[in-house]
Amino acid sequence: MALKKQSFAADLPEAKRLLLERVLSCADANIEPSLHRLFRFLRIPSVSCDPLCSPQCQEAASWLATELEDIGFDASVRQTTGHPVVVAHRKQVIGPHVLFYGHYDVQPVEPLDKWDADPFDPQLKVHPNGDTQIVARGASDDKGQLLTFVEACRAWKTVTGGLPISVSMFFEGEEESGSPSMDEFLNQAGGELRADIMLLCDTYLWNDAVPAITVMFRGLLEEEVEITCAKRDLHSGAYGNAARNPIQVLAELIGSLRGQGGEVAIEGFYDDVKEPGEELKSELKKLHFDADKFLQTVGLSQSAGDRAYSVLEQVWTRPSCEINGIAGGYHGEGLKTIIPSKAHAKISFRLVPGQDPEKIQAKFHEHIRARMPADCSVKVTGLGSSKASVVPSNSEYLRCARAALKDEWNCESVLIGSGGSIPIVSVMQSRFGLNALPIGFARSDNRHHSPNEKYDLSSFHKGIRSWIRILARLSSGESTSSEL
Amino acid sequence: MALKKQSFAADLPEAKRLLLERVLSCADANIEPSLHRLFRFLRIPSVSCDPLCSPQCQEAASWLATELEDIGFDASVRQTTGHPVVVAHRKQVIGPHVLFYGHYDVQPVEPLDKWDADPFDPQLKVHPNGDTQIVARGASDDKGQLLTFVEACRAWKTVTGGLPISVSMFFEGEEESGSPSMDEFLNQAGGELRADIMLLCDTYLWNDAVPAITVMFRGLLEEEVEITCAKRDLHSGAYGNAARNPIQVLAELIGSLRGQGGEVAIEGFYDDVKEPGEELKSELKKLHFDADKFLQTVGLSQSAGDRAYSVLEQVWTRPSCEINGIAGGYHGEGLKTIIPSKAHAKISFRLVPGQDPEKIQAKFHEHIRARMPADCSVKVTGLGSSKASVVPSNSEYLRCARAALKDEWNCESVLIGSGGSIPIVSVMQSRFGLNALPIGFARSDNRHHSPNEKYDLSSFHKGIRSWIRILARLSSGESTSSEL
Repeated sequence: MALKKQSFAADLPEAKRLLLERVLSCADANIEPSLHRLFRFLRIPSVSCDPLCSPQCQEAASWLATELEDIGFDASVRQTTGHPVVVAHRKQVIGPHVLFYGHYDVQPVEPLDKWDADPFDPQLKVHPNGDTQIVARGASDDKGQLLTFVEACRAWKTVTGGLPISVSMFFEGEEESGSPSMDEFLNQAGGELRADIMLLCDTYLWNDAVPAITVMFRGLLEEEVEITCAKRDLHSGAYGNAARNPIQVLAELIGSLRGQGGEVAIEGFYDDVKEPGEELKSELKKLHFDADKFLQTVGLSQSAGDRAYSVLEQVWTRPSCEINGIAGGYHGEGLKTIIPSKAHAKISFRLVPGQDPEKIQAKFHEHIRARMPADCSVKVTGLGSSKASVVPSNSEYLRCARAALKDEWNCESVLIGSGGSIPIVSVMQSRFGLNALPIGFARSDNRHHSPNEKYDLSSFHKGIRSWIRILARLSSGESTSSEL
Repeated sequence: MALKKQSFAADLPEAKRLLLERVLSCADANIEPSLHRLFRFLRIPSVSCDPLCSPQCQEAASWLATELEDIGFDASVRQTTGHPVVVAHRKQVIGPHVLFYGHYDVQPVEPLDKWDADPFDPQLKVHPNGDTQIVARGASDDKGQLLTFVEACRAWKTVTGGLPISVSMFFEGEEESGSPSMDEFLNQAGGELRADIMLLCDTYLWNDAVPAITVMFRGLLEEEVEITCAKRDLHSGAYGNAARNPIQVLAELIGSLRGQGGEVAIEGFYDDVKEPGEELKSELKKLHFDADKFLQTVGLSQSAGDRAYSVLEQVWTRPSCEINGIAGGYHGEGLKTIIPSKAHAKISFRLVPGQDPEKIQAKFHEHIRARMPADCSVKVTGLGSSKASVVPSNSEYLRCARAALKDEWNCESVLIGSGGSIPIVSVMQSRFGLNALPIGFARSDNRHHSPNEKYDLSSFHKGIRSWIRILARLSSGESTSSEL
């Protein structure tokens, strides 16, 4: 099966165009009910890493399946060893078959006191400039984004009674927790998820006006390091100087992870890094990325990374090591003069093509072992890993999507990278040779993983419209090619 | 006024001795009611550093005042700008006048999950070897210890209707929080606290069989350091490498505080340190301190401090820098891939004679300033400080106390140091020239400031008996010298 080039280059036939206009109008007219459904979805606190939230993850999966059945999908909740997966199909005889991927789970909400309102009581915040934002945990990552596709299907169904091409959907509930059950689930149900292309929406616009297709993702290795010295907390007067302090040991370890120039200082860390190709490098240069603005937006003025690389390279094409959390001893009100028994940190690595998570993990462990003084025991717990991935930047599906995006946004879309990780992209690529087409409508200021996460109402609305157009473009060849 | 040497060298006169035996027997016969009172005291969660515990601090002070009135003291609760102080007097026409100091406040109980039972529901734990332990927050530090003196006075009162010498008592409620209201209180009420000698009980036995008088204390400087980088938490994928990570910065700062040899690496930190005198050094050598056992008891095998000094010197006569707590980013279940906005640590310094807390603070702040990279703001908050102090090791009061301790324990007491800080000792010395006589009955395994804090029933009982004897010894000169 191959998409014929000419089916994308020409404008749509008049009948198709009129039908498309009706579907878009339907979505416009129904934006309030769409928003109402999103709010219902956001009220479910499906924090996948919190064992107490298991029932809520189940609830989110069931809610999604019901919504999909409502628009004609054959949808079901599949139990896994972790949180359930939702799988849904609505197949056509002709046209390409797309698999849409998303995740219904969300990040934890801590620090709760930094939120202006309950993270699970979504608010519509209207700004003086007229922008309207949906504020809630998951508003953007990924509930709001995934619903853009579901609502696009709903509009097609409302107007035409069906969908223009075959669509399957696949929603997991462990994306924010390293997807521990994914492998086992794919072993059992993987064949069912085969398709021509995987669409996903867990990515960003380039800016408010320019849509983007994300063609590379960094991988992730996340480790928890716990250092134990004395067998109990000690009085810092009685033992101060003599007793090894695990916070001191952990701090020295963390200090050793970065060199003076900002580079990661683990031996052999960069050994297998594959630099991006020249074509992609030149695409990235065309972006005229404003590094100063990127940093200034979050209150920073200088990059902390390896000075031999641009800021865009640092966050997209260079691997990283970050301390995501640290805790040890007393950190409540006032003082408590102890030498604690334990200290721990969550340390993660963003990986780039060529780097193998297992090899990096081994090098990290060796780095730790070489630095432990006497009387320290160290426990390192793996919290998940995934390889980096690259999306082909020259496929017919991609050209098709770019044409649709141009129709909606009135400008050319751009190809970008992502410093973040969407593990499913590399997993589906290596398992089924299934390439991804990641098109997201989140803005860079959406505060993913942070307090007051938000999704702009315009992202939600134009996201729905964009998917309606992409589905139309993907189906537009059906009159000229039975293979499409 | 001077104590005549011979009044201590000779045994007590027969009448005094018989009276003393009756007082000791009274204490023995009433150990259960004494314990009952201690339990009542321990049930009050008077955590001074927790603003929510203010009413409980007030309650502990009131309870103490009532107990003291019950044994004939003129006792009152004095309000301060912080937690109240209890002052009580019962004066005689002749004999020396002692001021007993203690504190009714306790350390926080975190980590609560490490306690075998509610920290404020005291338990009597009988061990297979017959030892009985009182387990609760404050059991030893300082509620159990201070009650040994109160109960000793009660026994004297029960048998004789009065006390053998003039006694004042002074209990504060902010010892575990750096005594922020102490200065102001002493300015107002200080004259009332003048006495010939200050007794205190917030110290340790040398070992289970050998009592000790503590003749030196380290001072304390406690600082809270907060580092802020970006103005909000960031997604570690989107910003990893480029955004300055405050945990990394804090870790590098902490790493810089100790040198390779275990010494504190702040410039000029040791400049003003006064080494202890030769006489005291030789007293310390006589102790035959078992450094290996000291470390092994808490699961350690090697000292982490400056190798140029013995372990005993490291914890008693050398200054120290300890990280008491650290926190930043996410440290709950699972993972959260953020670069946090802030990280903070509680860092304290144990100081020795010669070191001025203000000077050390200035050097520490300069050390921090010199190490802050771009885009970091640092806030350092002082949480309290006190100078080190030394107790004269050749006073008549000390000889008197040693004689009494020998009577009770059947062995010579020893002179020791303390790595901890009892700020009141240096304060009363510098304000009123009032020397201290610190005699405590805690064991080194009492888990002060830690979960499952305990006080041995034998410490409590023999502590009461020791104070009964010390009061007798201090009064024993009254028949031969009206000045005593």
